Amino acid sequence: MARQPTGESVLSRAVRIFEAFTPEEPVLQVSEIARRTGLHLATASRLVAELTGHGLLTRDDDRRVRIGVRMWELALRASPTATLRDAAMPFMEDVHAVVGHHVQLGVRDGDEVIFLERLSAPKAVINYTRIAGRLPMHASSSGLVLLAHGPADLRDRVLAGPLRAYTANTITTPDRLRSTLADIRKQGFAWCPGHIHEEALGVAVPVKDARGGIVAALSVIVPNTAESRGVTGILMAAARGITRSLPPSPLTH
Amino acid sequence: MARQPTGESVLSRAVRIFEAFTPEEPVLQVSEIARRTGLHLATASRLVAELTGHGLLTRDDDRRVRIGVRMWELALRASPTATLRDAAMPFMEDVHAVVGHHVQLGVRDGDEVIFLERLSAPKAVINYTRIAGRLPMHASSSGLVLLAHGPADLRDRVLAGPLRAYTANTITTPDRLRSTLADIRKQGFAWCPGHIHEEALGVAVPVKDARGGIVAALSVIVPNTAESRGVTGILMAAARGITRSLPPSPLTH
Repeated sequence: MARQPTGESVLSRAVRIFEAFTPEEPVLQVSEIARRTGLHLATASRLVAELTGHGLLTRDDDRRVRIGVRMWELALRASPTATLRDAAMPFMEDVHAVVGHHVQLGVRDGDEVIFLERLSAPKAVINYTRIAGRLPMHASSSGLVLLAHGPADLRDRVLAGPLRAYTANTITTPDRLRSTLADIRKQGFAWCPGHIHEEALGVAVPVKDARGGIVAALSVIVPNTAESRGVTGILMAAARGITRSLPPSPLTH
Repeated sequence: MARQPTGESVLSRAVRIFEAFTPEEPVLQVSEIARRTGLHLATASRLVAELTGHGLLTRDDDRRVRIGVRMWELALRASPTATLRDAAMPFMEDVHAVVGHHVQLGVRDGDEVIFLERLSAPKAVINYTRIAGRLPMHASSSGLVLLAHGPADLRDRVLAGPLRAYTANTITTPDRLRSTLADIRKQGFAWCPGHIHEEALGVAVPVKDARGGIVAALSVIVPNTAESRGVTGILMAAARGITRSLPPSPLTH
């Protein structure tokens, strides 16, 4: 691998440049990119120029830099997550039409949940997640479902903590987490009233592929009130529909 | 920029590796990646290993390679297309609930339309496009809308051809294309019966940002029958809704 004098590879620097962009600040000056990545301005300029040449970044008329459409295209067109998301989308729309608020599709990436898709109603209950947003596994209903059915080494890592509290209802002890995961495996769903926000209830069910492996969590975020009790059945039916629509080969990440 | 002995940069080779994956073949052996990119097997292996280390590619248990979730995340979380897509999604869902079939959001990238989002009904009329799919500007209703309102140099390039025929109805002459674009600017929509497939009608309207610049095309693909005449008004109303929901800063690509 070709390396710069500091020993860091070009690819690694390019990744750091992409990481400098955030949902809150999707447009940056090159000087700001240099500052955030710790790269010399000349190095950042050169890399931004090359990435722009490939369409992975793009420049405004005023020379500010954004993520390019080509980056998005390369990421999406052959992504296994695109297959999963395409299969899930019609069922997510059905759930959204009935339940309203937020309907989400999450997968595990490392020790976190990442949300591939979210349908939201304009006046939905509050929600921390967004598309391509992440949440820790112990805190979210989707994370708990993926954790309950995930590999033992993942469970050991998460149980070892830290288990950050979002509200007084967040699971923050290994004992409570362990018994919750056992309940989820038995019941087939995760039920998280006020775990991330007092006013919100998260409910998640596993989505299986044709071989029975858990590939995603389908979830809703609804008001934390008694009227929300009916959502579990709707979610379970939708998850079965997604499984039927998935291609026969397993989707792994 | 660090370069390999052949003079091609590492980033350029990495882009070629991503390009080796297609919607039809999203999972590849390293040897197949080497073949498709023209890279030496050792070079391809080394680059795949580094890209996997960054999470931009991922390996199955059987060592086959896919696009990684991290690539998807970096592309999406700060993408200007994500802002546009998030603003458009509730209105696209409304159009889809009323019209059925396919509802699409397309933007211009280079001399083509790329589709950021598509909602499809299970039994929808046939459709060539997919998310992150591309179509030439002269053939699709979305492309014609973006072309009609695009820069003069783009129009000159597309008018210079070639104008590939998909059906007997596709626009294939510069004269017909020029007059169609003038009609679109006057009427406010593109109406393409059977231009890509005999049975399908494509209808597209422009989506403006707060400053009045055209940032996208909102379109439906419906059966090419008399009953489809009502869709234009629905699309125009939805496009206005999207404009209202967009942040005040202009979205450029």
